[in-house]
Amino acid sequence: MIVVMEQNATDEQIQTIASKVEAMGLKANIIVGTERTVIAAIGEKRGSFKDSLESCPGVSAVTPISAPYKLASREVRPEPSLIEILDFRAGSGHVGYVAGPCSVESEEQLMSSARAVKAAGATGLRGGAFKPRTSPYSFQGMKEDGLKLLAAAREETGLAVFTEVMGTDDVDLVAKYADVLQVGARNMQNYRLLEAVGKCGKPVLLKRGASGTMDEFLLAAEYILNEGNDQVMLCERGIRTFETHTRFTLPLASIPYLHRRTHLPIIIDPSHGTGHTYMVKDLAVAAVAAGADGLIIEIHPDPPNAMSDGYQSQTFDEFAATMDRCQKVQRALQAD
Amino acid sequence: MIVVMEQNATDEQIQTIASKVEAMGLKANIIVGTERTVIAAIGEKRGSFKDSLESCPGVSAVTPISAPYKLASREVRPEPSLIEILDFRAGSGHVGYVAGPCSVESEEQLMSSARAVKAAGATGLRGGAFKPRTSPYSFQGMKEDGLKLLAAAREETGLAVFTEVMGTDDVDLVAKYADVLQVGARNMQNYRLLEAVGKCGKPVLLKRGASGTMDEFLLAAEYILNEGNDQVMLCERGIRTFETHTRFTLPLASIPYLHRRTHLPIIIDPSHGTGHTYMVKDLAVAAVAAGADGLIIEIHPDPPNAMSDGYQSQTFDEFAATMDRCQKVQRALQAD
Amino acid sequence: MIVVMEQNATDEQIQTIASKVEAMGLKANIIVGTERTVIAAIGEKRGSFKDSLESCPGVSAVTPISAPYKLASREVRPEPSLIEILDFRAGSGHVGYVAGPCSVESEEQLMSSARAVKAAGATGLRGGAFKPRTSPYSFQGMKEDGLKLLAAAREETGLAVFTEVMGTDDVDLVAKYADVLQVGARNMQNYRLLEAVGKCGKPVLLKRGASGTMDEFLLAAEYILNEGNDQVMLCERGIRTFETHTRFTLPLASIPYLHRRTHLPIIIDPSHGTGHTYMVKDLAVAAVAAGADGLIIEIHPDPPNAMSDGYQSQTFDEFAATMDRCQKVQRALQAD
Amino acid sequence: MIVVMEQNATDEQIQTIASKVEAMGLKANIIVGTERTVIAAIGEKRGSFKDSLESCPGVSAVTPISAPYKLASREVRPEPSLIEILDFRAGSGHVGYVAGPCSVESEEQLMSSARAVKAAGATGLRGGAFKPRTSPYSFQGMKEDGLKLLAAAREETGLAVFTEVMGTDDVDLVAKYADVLQVGARNMQNYRLLEAVGKCGKPVLLKRGASGTMDEFLLAAEYILNEGNDQVMLCERGIRTFETHTRFTLPLASIPYLHRRTHLPIIIDPSHGTGHTYMVKDLAVAAVAAGADGLIIEIHPDPPNAMSDGYQSQTFDEFAATMDRCQKVQRALQAD
Repeated sequence: MIVVMEQNATDEQIQTIASKVEAMGLKANIIVGTERTVIAAIGEKRGSFKDSLESCPGVSAVTPISAPYKLASREVRPEPSLIEILDFRAGSGHVGYVAGPCSVESEEQLMSSARAVKAAGATGLRGGAFKPRTSPYSFQGMKEDGLKLLAAAREETGLAVFTEVMGTDDVDLVAKYADVLQVGARNMQNYRLLEAVGKCGKPVLLKRGASGTMDEFLLAAEYILNEGNDQVMLCERGIRTFETHTRFTLPLASIPYLHRRTHLPIIIDPSHGTGHTYMVKDLAVAAVAAGADGLIIEIHPDPPNAMSDGYQSQTFDEFAATMDRCQKVQRALQAD
Repeated sequence: MIVVMEQNATDEQIQTIASKVEAMGLKANIIVGTERTVIAAIGEKRGSFKDSLESCPGVSAVTPISAPYKLASREVRPEPSLIEILDFRAGSGHVGYVAGPCSVESEEQLMSSARAVKAAGATGLRGGAFKPRTSPYSFQGMKEDGLKLLAAAREETGLAVFTEVMGTDDVDLVAKYADVLQVGARNMQNYRLLEAVGKCGKPVLLKRGASGTMDEFLLAAEYILNEGNDQVMLCERGIRTFETHTRFTLPLASIPYLHRRTHLPIIIDPSHGTGHTYMVKDLAVAAVAAGADGLIIEIHPDPPNAMSDGYQSQTFDEFAATMDRCQKVQRALQAD
Repeated sequence: MIVVMEQNATDEQIQTIASKVEAMGLKANIIVGTERTVIAAIGEKRGSFKDSLESCPGVSAVTPISAPYKLASREVRPEPSLIEILDFRAGSGHVGYVAGPCSVESEEQLMSSARAVKAAGATGLRGGAFKPRTSPYSFQGMKEDGLKLLAAAREETGLAVFTEVMGTDDVDLVAKYADVLQVGARNMQNYRLLEAVGKCGKPVLLKRGASGTMDEFLLAAEYILNEGNDQVMLCERGIRTFETHTRFTLPLASIPYLHRRTHLPIIIDPSHGTGHTYMVKDLAVAAVAAGADGLIIEIHPDPPNAMSDGYQSQTFDEFAATMDRCQKVQRALQAD
Repeated sequence: MIVVMEQNATDEQIQTIASKVEAMGLKANIIVGTERTVIAAIGEKRGSFKDSLESCPGVSAVTPISAPYKLASREVRPEPSLIEILDFRAGSGHVGYVAGPCSVESEEQLMSSARAVKAAGATGLRGGAFKPRTSPYSFQGMKEDGLKLLAAAREETGLAVFTEVMGTDDVDLVAKYADVLQVGARNMQNYRLLEAVGKCGKPVLLKRGASGTMDEFLLAAEYILNEGNDQVMLCERGIRTFETHTRFTLPLASIPYLHRRTHLPIIIDPSHGTGHTYMVKDLAVAAVAAGADGLIIEIHPDPPNAMSDGYQSQTFDEFAATMDRCQKVQRALQAD
């Protein structure tokens, strides 16, 4: 941690900071510059020292040197993690493809979707049974009935089931049917929920919040890992920016960034990341080209009649074409 | 709702949309333009029709005309709501001032803060007992012991107690001690929690999420109102933008915007909204000048030694000076 | 254009708007809804009617239906444009690769770069002679000496020369040496410059401003096209968002979006779009996978000793590897 | 400057950086931490060292300690600057009020506006003669005829004339008539124009670009100051964020931030900063409460018939009421 003092900081202020740094169990290294004095705090301790130093008189800025997360970091685990569930594999060279409807709506809708997912060569099935909706007046999901349909679809197809859990009270119920618990973007910093899915032990797909920074995202994963659950996948699904021609802005640079910082697999969601069906294929292929460890895509037998997210859902044929292109790119690049 | 068709939409596509609109219980008014055809859907129904129409072939865009929220709207309740708790009053011409430490740390810290709050003329006491922290390794709050201290401070000073509730499991416990349940920015779209504080019936301070749009913010309030709880205050605490010299960007235009759309009181948080103690006073006074119905400010007896948020906390003297300036502005403008 | 009236708009206000619409040469179609009245303005005229209607009493919102640009639109020219300069081809199925140093620094630096660009299979050479720099104290470029070196490099290699023009006074000078005039992101809305490069007639690479919307970007192109110059390429180089781990956020969804709206080729700049050398390759390959019509990449013989942008420049070897992967993806997808 | 090395940086890499730092004329102070090594570069030199160090092998991050601007800084000039032009005064305790139409449209429109500005107690007149417009098809201003009307209005009222200059070719012409040259938000980083208005010597109002950081904004001012022109006012007019209910997001925290960093006066533009007439008054009063050194406000005799920006222009009465409230707040706070 580097503490930069104000230009006119007094010797007393500098000494106070040095003492505080030492009291934190760190070594204070005072560097007197021509314009300013800087104190380098050396040691292994991590924590919220930054906050308390920044408010001290004479301090201009405090810059952390180490990442605030540990278990998620490459420094603790240098080799990439591989997540395996049934035939689904993500990370460590494997690209895991997940697809399915936004919401589970009926047996026919789900089963036909599952068969299309399987036929196109994907190994994971998504489908919402508990739906977080912006408006209290929108369809809220089929709840346990939806979970049962998902389990039945796994029974028939062998696809791994990914589904969202919205609250701590639902974790046990969802875990009873699902293979992967999804924590949605709105709940990225719902710490009670992160702790609960961490304790539950099932694999987790953690979506990045629409305004989550990379440190916040990795610290949210750290909440789960810290409960002893190391089956965590990170999902980039777009951030909120000034752009209005897409629902969110999908930053594929998250892939190389996260691969450098963390061993956890990175899954890309081009459906929410664009919000328009016609863009999904191009961004899906781009994500695979950029090194994503997996994709999660919304499909529907009849998008115009979907109960949610129809405007960003692919038809079965569009999805099959997308899979085909993704796999061509994967093969072209793996030959390297 | 206005459905704008693509330039090359076929008659059949136009008829399909018109039929769908009629099937929704709305009247379809087809307007043939020189370049495009537009369908105006007329009627009282609200819902997520937009989603399903936008994915239909031939549709270019769908523009809602009515606001998606009801109970929060001025259209349903034209006169501003007044929230009264003990001596605290916000809305309908009253400005309610709330202050206190970020976290409750000890009896001495809290009681001295409460006395300073009272002495400066404020009527609400804030203090976190359950703390949502970005890192699992940071101080997580004193929990029930903190709540007891808050209740004791109310006992002595008569200040209304505002404190955060982080999860559904804690609602009953927090409600036992607090006067106002605060839902934090990270939980603005934690719908389970919104439903729980709605059912609980206690007044709620709902903070805007760092990337929440105004519609999302008002629909989050709608979740609470929809449970029959009409004691809701909206808190603007800044949004996430590209700016890095402040912790968040505090948009005071939210005040006139929200006053025009909703009857709910608007409280401004200049502490989180700036993230720097030296900016808090200026933004607090500005908020009152812009017509805020209240302020919530972080103070601490010794900011450099605060366990959280010291860098944005005022000392007792700074807070007293801020209150003095706010009230001067309030008096100068009320004379109008 | 759709004019949505306030719920409590008076008949007189509605009639006033209808009269204004007719006075603009458009047909006013009044639709009386259950909650609000809407006026659809029908006709071929375009212009800033929106501004003047939005400020009228009783008006809630005005929604344009047609795009504000014409010459850039697919509606005016449905088939994609192909830009050809020497061996460089972008658009209409061709991917044009451009690379070179951020700044021209010396004959040796530029010639070695040009040879590396050529050897890797690219057909365009970039290099700044006039450098827009955030600080007046930074290196401002070699100016005409730099332009001469670029022309010499073209002489030897046959690469098309892309270089930036910063002001109207420099257009003639730059046009004397360059094949493509680049308008930088900071100047996207420097209308005098857009007019000047439009009049000049040389092909133009127009970079998107860091906060330019798509409409603003296309209207900036329209300024150039409107001067009779139809050799315009659009360059997406990233937008400013809250993210700090990349220099800008590179939204590849711009590719399918722009391809749907405009016939102009789309070039992606993964160097500025990420700001970190280690990310450039992945984003370059992703851009090709997403359908980009070209790439522009910064390279340098010795990035740590570059006079500008070394932190985002590739070495010659890194660039060759990037080209190899891009072309593999191109071939894999073209086989479709 | 602090250079943070990667955890696995080699001794050779560390020595290379130290040598580079010394070669730059700075002293390299190597601090060996438990996890990482940090090199503090000590000395008076400023420049773009950051860029070249960040691309070196083994370097994780480079953090500047000193601000990159000089002449604009409080460190060079600790006391606030006062800008005086005719009766207009901004800075150093004075609040300068400027108002007028977006575009000069006619003699009657401008003269009536100027009289209303004067009557309300303001001392500056704004009005655009050269208009930067997003679309080439929009009204581009009355050009020199508009400038002549502005000069005539000054003749009658004594108001200082503020008007925009869009290109280097127009600087002499505009300077012939205007008292203050305005550089618009789109041109904040048009360095040729900044140099030209710097050389011209007339006072300059520099508007912040919609995505300009504070350092970029102050460095743009530095371009003007560096030409020997110290009559610079900074204008905050809002930034581009995800918010769509305002045209831009107006961050009043810029006022205390800039007051701490620079001696230059800060003028707030609540018209562009909100984009809606009904919000202008509240944000104007808030800006004065937050310590602004001036305001610039758009007014029009008949906003619905304005040729530009009618939706954010105040009527004369609305402006008079705004001035009244601003001055009440000014008096209430100056009494401190």
